Order: sequence, then structure tokens, then C-alpha cells
Amino acid sequence: MKKISILGSTGSIGMQALEVVRNNKDKFKIEALAINTSIDMLKKQILEFRPRVVAVYNEGKAKELKEILPNEVDVDIYSGMEGLKTIASLESVDIVLTALVGMIGLIPTLEAIKYKKTIALANKETLVTAGKLVMNEAKKMGVKILPVDSEHSAIFQCLNGESNKEIEKIILTASGGPFRNKTKEQLIDITKNEALKHPNWSMGRKISIDSATLMNKGLEVIEAKWLFGVEASDIDVLVHPQSIVHSMVQFIDGSVIAQLGNTDMKLPIQYALSYPNRIYNDYERLDLAKLSSLTFEKPDSDTFPCLKLAYECLEKGGTYSTVLNAANEILVSEFLNDKIKFYDIPMYIERALEKHSIIEEPTLEEILHIDNWSREFIKESMK
Amino acid sequence: MKKISILGSTGSIGMQALEVVRNNKDKFKIEALAINTSIDMLKKQILEFRPRVVAVYNEGKAKELKEILPNEVDVDIYSGMEGLKTIASLESVDIVLTALVGMIGLIPTLEAIKYKKTIALANKETLVTAGKLVMNEAKKMGVKILPVDSEHSAIFQCLNGESNKEIEKIILTASGGPFRNKTKEQLIDITKNEALKHPNWSMGRKISIDSATLMNKGLEVIEAKWLFGVEASDIDVLVHPQSIVHSMVQFIDGSVIAQLGNTDMKLPIQYALSYPNRIYNDYERLDLAKLSSLTFEKPDSDTFPCLKLAYECLEKGGTYSTVLNAANEILVSEFLNDKIKFYDIPMYIERALEKHSIIEEPTLEEILHIDNWSREFIKESMK
Repeated sequence: MKKISILGSTGSIGMQALEVVRNNKDKFKIEALAINTSIDMLKKQILEFRPRVVAVYNEGKAKELKEILPNEVDVDIYSGMEGLKTIASLESVDIVLTALVGMIGLIPTLEAIKYKKTIALANKETLVTAGKLVMNEAKKMGVKILPVDSEHSAIFQCLNGESNKEIEKIILTASGGPFRNKTKEQLIDITKNEALKHPNWSMGRKISIDSATLMNKGLEVIEAKWLFGVEASDIDVLVHPQSIVHSMVQFIDGSVIAQLGNTDMKLPIQYALSYPNRIYNDYERLDLAKLSSLTFEKPDSDTFPCLKLAYECLEKGGTYSTVLNAANEILVSEFLNDKIKFYDIPMYIERALEKHSIIEEPTLEEILHIDNWSREFIKESMK
Repeated sequence: MKKISILGSTGSIGMQALEVVRNNKDKFKIEALAINTSIDMLKKQILEFRPRVVAVYNEGKAKELKEILPNEVDVDIYSGMEGLKTIASLESVDIVLTALVGMIGLIPTLEAIKYKKTIALANKETLVTAGKLVMNEAKKMGVKILPVDSEHSAIFQCLNGESNKEIEKIILTASGGPFRNKTKEQLIDITKNEALKHPNWSMGRKISIDSATLMNKGLEVIEAKWLFGVEASDIDVLVHPQSIVHSMVQFIDGSVIAQLGNTDMKLPIQYALSYPNRIYNDYERLDLAKLSSLTFEKPDSDTFPCLKLAYECLEKGGTYSTVLNAANEILVSEFLNDKIKFYDIPMYIERALEKHSIIEEPTLEEILHIDNWSREFIKESMK
């Protein structure tokens, strides 16, 4: 029985992870859950999964939760960043699924590593903002970081048992998002509702906007560099509108291994939780004969400059990715609040990157400082 | 330095294997070569690769070879089945590449297993005719059988490190051969020259005809059963005209791992020789963005009944596959000699299968006897 903590249990990944646990009660037990504010949903989860401990990041909501829970429910409630850290480091826990959205996941992830928990990483911003630091800590503590992103899970599955040294290239596939084949002119005035309609995947709001700008793929390129120890120049992005091939690895002999599946996040979540084994499920199987065809094309980084910006940050190294990530978080949030337009996202990010002075090997404090600087810079710029 | 014997060095696979060796002289050394009759080609190979020992199956040709070799060449020459067995069992050899065509490869393969040589198996008929016997011997002797067929190499690569028990289905891809989308009526009178034109792969004559009838895929289904320990019902065939996806494995969680590459037999040959490592080569890389699309469809086993016959033999078990293989060898040879028509191949095979009385667990002698019976039955039937 693997004992699991979920950071972000009321988000899209968290809820799908709970569905995986629900279907495998003989294999997984929920020890702890952490969320930001959605206490009504958390209450239902507490009643169903009976965690020993929960955390609500928002202090006020944590107090409210105490009031709405039935008296007979025996659960310790924590709040704030200390609460998230508690959930990440419980002694009884084997795996911490980090499914918070944004760089808020960084500190709890480091805490989980410190306590030698296996990490199921669904919070890509953690590696984008502090990849070197996180991977160094994980290496030092002998902690496994298992990817949950469908692309990185695909690569992880393709690499099964293969030596890192034999990778020639990682090929991340991208659906191309809702605006594939659109021109810049067509995108200038698009709305958040159009951007939120992803063609293949059902996802949270932030990642949906990141998919529309292709920043999501840029963040994934950075994540892949840290997870698999390859250089930016050895990571290719290939647009594959059907989202059936979830990613590929090309080896030094030219052989390519690909992972395919339906577009269901429960699959990579389950794989991270069950690793190194696979467990049976009755989800619909891929039927390749039913699909018309699988196509591949080069991404259009003129129309979608965010992808290019991510590659640039990776090549420059140091804290550039921290600036990129923080700026993007603020800008996506502003776009979701109808405060800015689609191309304002890359434009403001570029300004922040231009103003930034790199730190090559940042400490956690420096990362947090630069993250904060980038957010403030963006807010100031937008005034 | 791995020391290699090649059985069938003047055939298509053998010559491509020698090219792999030529490109990796620091890693591979040719110890021994065996052929049937092409002594002029063997002479060139002897002069280039300087094997210590060679065998020529045809006794007369073996004598001729002695005469055409320069005096200063120091090579032991053997002949007949004893010669093939000698090549397969040399003490100094690490890997035996079995690339003979047809069931003639069976006895030397068993000999190589007896002497604990790693087998790079390019002779699928060996497993078709005597799969259980060969796999049992290999298990007993702790011998690895590494597939060279592109489909089985693909599956072997997809399974890297994964447990057999987690396989849900093996999906063998098939180009569909030169007659895909043709009707029965169109195929009744086709000639050997039309059948020899394979759309994607450059191959030997026997396998080209087997590809045209889809018998090749049927033999591969049987081969896959023995190599990977799965049931016939867990092996699917999917027509994939582009021949880019070389085969796939579907796991119990629904995840599918596929191996992709250009249609170049040197890749699976090199992988079998370099296993468990990969070695760099400068062959052209796969460029998915350049391909129009990858498509998949169910095979048409009404137009191509040989595939159905192979599944039937696998389900009936025992010596049915021995009959199928032997009958097919004779019939393909007759078709190549313009003696019979395209649909005579499945028709005569079916007759032989109907006449056959199964032996469930045959010995080598019984297999050889039934193989011989099947050949004679076909020759009689055609009179």
C-alpha cells in the first residue's frame, strides 16, 4: 500500500489523481491533502478519502473548513506555507504528488525532497523556476522525481532502462493548441474564452492559456532539460495535432521510441503512482485503425513567440527561466481577468528578460527574490 | 570486441550485417561465415573480413572455393550441415547471427544454443517451425535470443526493462505489401515480378513473396508468440503503409510504446549486435515533419488468407506451424519459378493443414519428419 500526499487536490490534476486512487483502493491510500481555497470540494474529499492531515493555504479558508466539517471527522488542519510543508513531509507518506499551479509549489517540493519522499511532479513551474537547485537536492537526497506531465511521462516511459548517454534527441510533441494555423493578425484580439478551448485535453485554466500561447511547451522544454539531463539544443518540439503520440526519444543509433495513448491525464498520473510497475485499468484503449492519421509539423514560433523565449532562457541559463516563469504567471492571470491582450504576454515577458541581470547559480532566496522582482516589474510595466 | 559468426553472409541480411561490422571495426570482429552456394561473393568477404573459418553448405561449391582462394589466405573451409554446425558453435564466438533463409536454419541455431552462443535471430522460420523446442533449449542453456526482424526488434526495444506480465497486446505493423488495397480478382494472375516489388523495404526474394501474400506477417505473429511469450489472441496486426512505426506494445494500463525509424535493416541488425548498448551511426535520421502522415488500418485477411492460416496454426498449436512453414517454403519457390499462381500458395497450404495430424510436443526428429512430409505432400499435390 503506497501512502500518498496530494498538494493541490482540488485542481484538475489533483481530482484526476483521486480518481486513480478511488479505482485502486487496494494499492493507494491518501494520507494528506493540501489546497489553496476550495474548501467545499476539500470537505467532500476528506469525507471520501479520510486523510489524516490536510492543509489550506489560505488562512481564513482554513478556519472556515474547521467549521463546516462534521464533528466526528478526525483530521488535523494546517494552513499557510507551513501547512503545505507539513503535508509534503509527513513521516508516513511515500509519494508526494505536487499538483499546485505555479511557483508556489517550489518550497513544498523542496521540503518533500528534504524528507526523502518520492516526488510525482505535476507542477512544472517548480523545475522551470529552480531546475538546477531542485535536481541537485534530489540527487543529494537520493530522491526520485517522477514526471506527471503527459509529455514527460511519455519520455520517462520511452527511456525505461535506457542509458541517458544514449539519448540523441528528445522530441516533445505539442497539439499546437487552439490557435494552430492561425496568423498573428487573427490572434491579436482573441478572447480568453477562445483561448480556454483546448482541442484535445481537459485541463486547468492556467495551463490552457499556456497551451494557447505555446508557453506551456516552452516550460516543458525547460522541464525536460532538468528531468532528463539534456541540452536545449537536443530538445525538439514537433506539433502533432492529434495528441496521440505524447512524446518521443531518438537514440544515438537513430532509433526512435514513442509513447502513445488517449488524451487522458489519469494515465500518466497512474503511471507515476504505480511506478516501477504498471497497473491494469479499464480506460478506453487506443484504436489506431479508427484514427484517420497521425501528422507532424514544425512549430510556428513567429506566431507563438513564447516558445522561442523559453528556448532563449534555457540557453542563457541561470535565473532567466525564473523571470520568464514569474512574468508569465502574472500575465496569464491578467489575461484571464481580461486586463491584457494575447500578444501582451510575450511582449511584457521580453521586457522583463531584457531588464534582468543573471545569477548563474542562484540560492533558494535568490530565486524567490528574482521571482518577486519579475512579478513586480510586470505589474509596474502594465500600469 | 564482440566476435561474430554469420550464417547466411551472402544473403540480404548477411550483407547488411557485414556493413554494420565494416562501420564498427573497433567493436565487432567476424570470426566465421557460412553460406549456401555464392562462393564468389564469399571470397570477397573472406578477403575483406578475414574470418578464421567458413562453411559452404553445398559440397561442390565448398571444393570450388578452395580453388579460387589465393594461397596466402588462411581459412578453414567446412561444408554441409556439419559445416553450418561448426560455424554456429566455434568456441571463440560470442554472437551467432542466423540469417539463413528457411527452416535449414533450425539445426545450426540449436547447435549455437547448445554451445551457449547469444543468438541474433534473423531466421524467423526457425521459431515458426520449432518455436517451443528452440525457446525451451534457450531457457535451459540461459541463452539470449535477440530478434533481428525489424518488427520484433521494435517490440524488444519497446519492452526494454518492462515485465512480460504487463503486456496487454503486441501490435505488429505491416506495410501491407505491394498489393495493399487490391482485390482478389486483381491478384489472381499477378506475376512474380509484381510481387517482388516491395514498396518500402529492400529484401531477399523469399521474404518479398511472403510480404506480398502477408504470410510474412503471419510468420511474424508466430515468431512474436515464441519470442515474447504471449498468446495469439494478444497479438494484433495493423497495416501501416508508411512502415515508419515498426511495431508497438500495449501495456495493461493502456499505454502504448512504439519504435519508429527509417526502413533500413541495418538498424535492427546493429541493435542486436550492440545490445544491451546502442552505438552511434550516421544513417539518415527520421524526419517526421517531412512525412505527410502516418496511417493505420486493419489487415484484409479475405484477400490475403495466409495471415489467417498462420493465426489458425498458432491457435491449434503443436506441429501445425511446421506444416505451414514447410508448405510455404516449397510454394514460394514454385511461385518464383513461375510454376504456380498467387492464390495457389494459400490453397495448397490449406490442403496440407487439413491432412495433418498434430503432435503436441514434437521432438526435433518429429519436426524434421513433419517438415519433410509437408514438402512431399505439396509436391505430390501439385503434380
